[in-house]
Parts: sequence; C-alpha cells; structure tokens
Amino acid sequence: MNAADKSTEHMNVKKPSSQSDGTVTIIGTGLIGGSFGLVLKDKKLAEHIIGVDKSEVNQKRALELGLVDEVLPLKEAIAKSKLIVLAVPVDALFNLLPAVLDEVINQVVMDMGSTKESVIAAVANHPKRRRFVASHPMWGTEYSGPEAAVKTAFANKAAVICDSEHSDEDALELVKNIYNETGMHLVYMDAAAHDLHAAYISHISHITSFALANTVLEKEKEEDAIFELASGGFESTVRLAKSNSEMWVPIFKQNRENVLDVLNEHISQLRKFKSCLEKENYEYLQELIENANDIRRILK
Amino acid sequence: MNAADKSTEHMNVKKPSSQSDGTVTIIGTGLIGGSFGLVLKDKKLAEHIIGVDKSEVNQKRALELGLVDEVLPLKEAIAKSKLIVLAVPVDALFNLLPAVLDEVINQVVMDMGSTKESVIAAVANHPKRRRFVASHPMWGTEYSGPEAAVKTAFANKAAVICDSEHSDEDALELVKNIYNETGMHLVYMDAAAHDLHAAYISHISHITSFALANTVLEKEKEEDAIFELASGGFESTVRLAKSNSEMWVPIFKQNRENVLDVLNEHISQLRKFKSCLEKENYEYLQELIENANDIRRILK
Repeated sequence: MNAADKSTEHMNVKKPSSQSDGTVTIIGTGLIGGSFGLVLKDKKLAEHIIGVDKSEVNQKRALELGLVDEVLPLKEAIAKSKLIVLAVPVDALFNLLPAVLDEVINQVVMDMGSTKESVIAAVANHPKRRRFVASHPMWGTEYSGPEAAVKTAFANKAAVICDSEHSDEDALELVKNIYNETGMHLVYMDAAAHDLHAAYISHISHITSFALANTVLEKEKEEDAIFELASGGFESTVRLAKSNSEMWVPIFKQNRENVLDVLNEHISQLRKFKSCLEKENYEYLQELIENANDIRRILK
Repeated sequence: MNAADKSTEHMNVKKPSSQSDGTVTIIGTGLIGGSFGLVLKDKKLAEHIIGVDKSEVNQKRALELGLVDEVLPLKEAIAKSKLIVLAVPVDALFNLLPAVLDEVINQVVMDMGSTKESVIAAVANHPKRRRFVASHPMWGTEYSGPEAAVKTAFANKAAVICDSEHSDEDALELVKNIYNETGMHLVYMDAAAHDLHAAYISHISHITSFALANTVLEKEKEEDAIFELASGGFESTVRLAKSNSEMWVPIFKQNRENVLDVLNEHISQLRKFKSCLEKENYEYLQELIENANDIRRILK
C-alpha cells in the first residue's frame, strides 16, 4: 500500500501484532465502499481488503464481485487493518464511528459520508478522535449496492477533507495520499462550510430530480409516452431520482437546515418562471434563462 | 437520396425543371438543422444540401463545417429541392412555414419544431398544407449554433409525426423513410397530445434546470466551490440550463398552458419535500423518494 507506506514513518504508537500495513477494512460494501475496494485493488493501493457489512447478501456479493478479499466481523477486521474506511449511510455513522474508534489502537479511520458536521460532532470528545479523518469524495451514481461498484469511480473529482486540524498528521497524510492516488484532487474546508456547499451542489439536485420524477409520474399517466418520447434531456435531469432512500433520507435529515434554505430559494426561482408564463412576460423569462446560462461560465 | 427515391413513384405533380431528387434544403443551420445536414450526408440520404440561414455568420460556419454544400436565398433553394426542412425556433416557424409553402409546387416540407399545435394551426387552410409533414425529433443538446452540430444526432431516439392524416401520402413516406434511415423510431400522435407530452417530458426539465442554475448562482457566491465540488449529479441535473433562450422562450410561449400546468404540479411536489423537512416527517420523505424511484421502471 503505497500511500500507507509513506505515512508509516510518522507513527508513534505501537501497532497491534495482527496488523498488516497493506490491509484495509471497508465497512459498507455498497456503491461507495465497493467502488473504493475496486479502485484500491486496481491501483495497487492495498494488499488485502477486508469487507464488513451487516447484510449477508452484500457480504456474499462483495466477495463474488471481488470488491473485497475476505469478510470478517468488525472487531477482528479492525485489529488486522492499517486503515478502516466507513462507507455507510450517514445515520449509521453516528453509532458506528465511535464504536470503531473504541477499537482503534494506532489505526487510521476515515469516513466517506455526504454530511460532515453532525458526524464529526459525534466523536468530538472521543479519546481517539485524532485517528479519524473526516472526508467526502464528491462522486456517486444513482445506483446502489455491491453490483453498482465500478473501478472508474472517484477519478477527476474532488475529495473534501474536513476539520483536518483535528486529525493526527500521519492519519491525514495516509488519507491524502490514498485520495491522490485514486486521481482525486483535495479540497479542505470546515464541516459547516462543507455541509452548506453540499446542500447547494449535491443535495438540492437530488430533491429536484425526485420531485421532477414524481411530477411526471403524477401527470403523465401514459407511461408508454414517457418511455418512447423521453429525450436525453429528461433522462439527465431525472437520473438522480433513481437514487436510494436509505442513503438520501439520512442526508436530508442531517443537513436539514441548509437543504431547506436552498429548497426555499429553488421554489422561489421556479415561481419566477411561473409568474412570467402567467403574466406572459417573455422579456423577463428571457432574462431568467440568460441568467441561468451563466452556469456555462462555471461548468464547462 | 434513398428515402426520396422510394417515394418518387407516389408523386403526381409535375416537378419544377430546376428540381433535383437528391437535393435537400435546410432552413436554419444551427444545432438541429446542422446536425440533420451532417446525418443526411453521413448516411448518404442526400446528394446535395442547400443551407438557408438569416445569419451570415451561420451561413459561413455551416459551409466551413460541411453541414451544407452551398448557401442560397430561400426561394432559389426551394425551387431546386425535393425536400425542405425547417429547423428554426418555433416562433420563426409561424411566418416562415406559410412563406415556404407559398413557393412549393410538389416539394415536401417538414419542420422539426418542439411545439406543434400552433404551428400546424398557422397553415391549416394553406392550399399546400398536404405537402407539409409536422414532426419533432426528440433529440437535442444544451448547445446551439452550427458548431454544436454532430453527426451522431437523432439515432435511437423517437421522431414524433403529428396529424399525419393531413399530409400527402408521398410526403409522409419520404419523411418517415428519412427518419427511419437516421435511426429514429416513429411515433404518431395528434398535435395536442404531442404538446402535452412534450411539456411533461422535455419542457419542464428545462425549466427545472434553469431554475436550479439560478438557485445555485443566487445562493452560492463562492463560484470556486461550485467549480471544485460539482459532482456528476449536479452537472447532469443542471446541464440543460446551458440551453439558449432564443430557442426556449418561444417554446414556453407556445406551449404555455401545458407548461404552466406541469410547472404547478412540480412546485407542489417540491413543497411536499419542503413540508417533510419542516415537520421532520422522515417516513413521508422516504415514501416520496421511493415513489420517485418508480421512474426506474420506465427509464432504464
């Protein structure tokens, strides 16, 4: 494990006898954790990957699909690993993260959750807090489960590292190196800023897409028409509506205030379009569209 | 021109002396018209393509990019062609379509506009109405102008043909054959049904996307954050917001009632998400998401 090797020199705590530097445990072997397993293997960043998953079906599929090399119970997996990666829905992180840190001697623990403030708060006073690096790789698809894992994941996207000053230097180095090796670029911010930006840039898109799917499913009773006529535009706007509720309800719950704030703004922006059409004010409609076109400046 | 050849036998009107069976005129050499030119050439469906465009810049670019073989004034182009394709914004179609039909002897005229009812009504009593085939290929991108034209356009998407009973059989055959040869599948409906479905499946996606871009541009003052953090999900939801106002204002104007109806439903669907978050009713939030997931049944 290249990234881990680089950081070994920083370590000042004796490692458990069973621990191997090339061993990584991934807890949660679905889309994100499973993809991380594939990427670590593909880029030779881990010698051995242990999967931990509460679902036996997922355990089996993760092994069959080669996302992990073996499946072990949590404590045993932690004891054998240099790095423990938490890739579970954000509500599960609350209990899991402190429980994992309870078992940690000198291991490094990182999460990949989509909200950061509440999870970080949950371990603020944990004696092993500094072994934990809070992160959020800005990658995902609308699919879930081990079958959704792909080895092309993560590359060329941002990985956010939050509140890095509360992590040990060697732990931070290890996580930074691993993200760099997967082709991600690192962005640092505090947890509050992360959750705000994530609401704007990721969470609201999902609500929009869910609501759009519900709109069309409600209004368009002729499903054949959707299927036959749907153009690339519709498919791309509604794609995220396939995303799964087990992941997204906890995200909206934990980022509730930011999401509500952006959602209110979004509804008020839609009302402007409505008002233009009602009043047949096409000059203002054009202005609204030209303003939206400004997104071209920012997204190529 | 294979498709044209097949339909020549149906023709019962003497053709103008200058007309060539392999010649197609495309009026409007932007994204749609330009792409159609490329596809006709790529699939050898036309021997010679004449471009007509009110913009001299577009004329020049269309020639340079090989979207058309020559540029001529409207009347001259019509006189030389077997088929005239109108690929202009839907508001321009109102005046252009009757003017084109005024020049027609036995030529076939087709449009590619995104709304159908008002355009068809504009030529309902025209003596050459039966030479016109109203159609809407369900393909597009968020880009515009000759530079946006691509020869991979149209394939595997639906082409809607509206009110086909008001077109001559040979005209209909020619248009059907051409769309088939470009790899599109044909869907027949009346203009009113088309405009309703288009509001659900295409027009509302654009409004959503424009409004989402405005939301994020309004709320997220740190443009670097958008640029750095934007994941594939955001990019796909906001992609259509790059679409141009010259095309879209006329569409929304002409399909105003249907679009307003769907937009009202969309706002009310978003309010349900808002209310769930406000009341912290996460069971209902989960239901809303699971309902949206149903779109998986329809879109693969």
